Amino acid sequence: MLYEINEKALRLESEGKKIIRLNLGDPDMATPPEIVEAAYASMKAGKTKYSSSYGETKLRQKIAEAHGVKAENVIITPGSKWAIFVTMFLMLKNGGNVIIPTPYWTAYDLIAKSFGAKTKLLRTELEDGWKVDISKLEELIDSETKMIILNNPNNPTSKSMDSKTLDEVVALANKKGITILSDEVYGAIAFNKTKSILDYGADSKHILSNGFSKTFTMTGWRIGYIVANKAYIDQVVKLNQITFNNVPVFIQEAAIKGIELHTQIAANIKAKYKERADLASSKLKAGGFKFTTPDAPFYVFPKRDGLDGTKFCLDLLDKGVAVAPGASFGDYPDHFRISLTAPDEQIKVALDKICEAVQ
Amino acid sequence: MLYEINEKALRLESEGKKIIRLNLGDPDMATPPEIVEAAYASMKAGKTKYSSSYGETKLRQKIAEAHGVKAENVIITPGSKWAIFVTMFLMLKNGGNVIIPTPYWTAYDLIAKSFGAKTKLLRTELEDGWKVDISKLEELIDSETKMIILNNPNNPTSKSMDSKTLDEVVALANKKGITILSDEVYGAIAFNKTKSILDYGADSKHILSNGFSKTFTMTGWRIGYIVANKAYIDQVVKLNQITFNNVPVFIQEAAIKGIELHTQIAANIKAKYKERADLASSKLKAGGFKFTTPDAPFYVFPKRDGLDGTKFCLDLLDKGVAVAPGASFGDYPDHFRISLTAPDEQIKVALDKICEAVQ
Repeated sequence: MLYEINEKALRLESEGKKIIRLNLGDPDMATPPEIVEAAYASMKAGKTKYSSSYGETKLRQKIAEAHGVKAENVIITPGSKWAIFVTMFLMLKNGGNVIIPTPYWTAYDLIAKSFGAKTKLLRTELEDGWKVDISKLEELIDSETKMIILNNPNNPTSKSMDSKTLDEVVALANKKGITILSDEVYGAIAFNKTKSILDYGADSKHILSNGFSKTFTMTGWRIGYIVANKAYIDQVVKLNQITFNNVPVFIQEAAIKGIELHTQIAANIKAKYKERADLASSKLKAGGFKFTTPDAPFYVFPKRDGLDGTKFCLDLLDKGVAVAPGASFGDYPDHFRISLTAPDEQIKVALDKICEAVQ
Repeated sequence: MLYEINEKALRLESEGKKIIRLNLGDPDMATPPEIVEAAYASMKAGKTKYSSSYGETKLRQKIAEAHGVKAENVIITPGSKWAIFVTMFLMLKNGGNVIIPTPYWTAYDLIAKSFGAKTKLLRTELEDGWKVDISKLEELIDSETKMIILNNPNNPTSKSMDSKTLDEVVALANKKGITILSDEVYGAIAFNKTKSILDYGADSKHILSNGFSKTFTMTGWRIGYIVANKAYIDQVVKLNQITFNNVPVFIQEAAIKGIELHTQIAANIKAKYKERADLASSKLKAGGFKFTTPDAPFYVFPKRDGLDGTKFCLDLLDKGVAVAPGASFGDYPDHFRISLTAPDEQIKVALDKICEAVQ
């Protein structure tokens, strides 16, 4: 439904209707101009040739520093989605299953299906604060389980895992010999510091995927990375070599500029989205919706008992507001996801329409 | 060996040695400045957001016009390598084999192996003008054969297929219900017009992969495309959506500028490489090497009976010239590949060293 809603939104727009687009996690802000200028300078300097499938050494070093690992633990990918695809492909192409807590980002499931891997879904609930139940997780694990995917902070709930739960998941995975892929693409801009999978050591068998899209408003640039043990990085490079080969060097140099400006850029983004999250929280509370307060930018995932989320989203779209139905993130028909990725005024109007729609 | 030679060349360079790099197909010329400026203008205009996994409509239309097909037959990929990977993945992930004439680009074989597909190699010989023997091809086909890969013009031989042979291969593939993937990345800059797989209709089951790297000196930009029937394009988009998502829009707009300047750019490249090919041909002939005269830019694939190509390449590298051993392109131990992708003066010096090395 995520793609259908988007297609319908695009179609309505092409017919001249004004749609407030809160259905995708694509920030309304532009890429910071310093990053654009860095890319241009790099292109002009002739950084337009084939280059390493590991990524540029300088960028790998900068990322390594930021995560407290070595450059050899880092590999550059065309977006964090590729980082996830390649990891799932390498782990699951010869069979096995992957456990994914829900609600979840649809792409995990679509990726698994693309090469016939099995997914086992581990349901979490708003009423439990979206907490993973360790005993349920243990029950789901079988001899074919190769990996667990954590999305921390989570899309669509914007909830971070608490340290204790993460400790327990890691301990269980270690005991069972299962790899965790931790997608932390919202981690660097979380409102509060979140524990990372790398806090358990970069030489473990666990894998971090991350990207520049959300932190540096670089969604369309397609640059992300994996941090993992060196042996694993050396496996990934072989797939990089036979697929996209390398992320353009001028894009990598733009990302280096982003890291250099990180403190300032991330602070701006956090402040802006904290405001929006507070606004959304107060309006949705007043409108009678249930939800957890976002720990990170972009999303709120409200619930209203008995709501037909898909019908709600389609009707709302006819009223000029695009949001994503809960069914796009697992079996959550009475939820929907709001992306706070539009100018403030539009978000206000949209939230009012959302609240009116359920009166 | 292709990668090993390159790594050794990089290592020698990092130790301060001067290496003439004729081992990769990465042109020495810079990307035309108009293309760089178009990318910059696009970035500044905010074309830095997520976009369609099919590619930008305007670019698809331009490519469609160039090939005499519809925009719906075109999908944009991060390089032609991705176009090849995705096609082989979709055709072969559930088993089957692919027939590849040799000498061949190593990537085809590595891609097949990455998901456990079988390759069947069809040997062609310098002495036969690198012609595909149709009866041998027919013998190789079995009930598990899903596809045939043609690289036309070929890397490493720079030989184009003659129309009659191509007609026969297509007729045989049609009779047997086998898909041809035609990698024509050197086609637009071939010295003479070469028949394309699209000359048999875009609605056939055959597939064209192509790219901007070679024609527009955009190797490091990573942009290519597939032309095929619409149903197939709609399959590819699903894999694009769950992997890299989209080629950055500003790169696509740079490619549009390339197409607008196509006639002029391609003419310059052809003229430059024709000169180099003539130079190489006369020097290699004088040096006693056997080879076919290149039909397209970049490569010559000379032979010397009894040569130990790998040892030859390693020794030559110690003398400051990097070329690629024939063994990197199949069972061709007495061949090596020269990429004419360095400034003219360097090419002259390198050719002299190559000829001296076998005296």
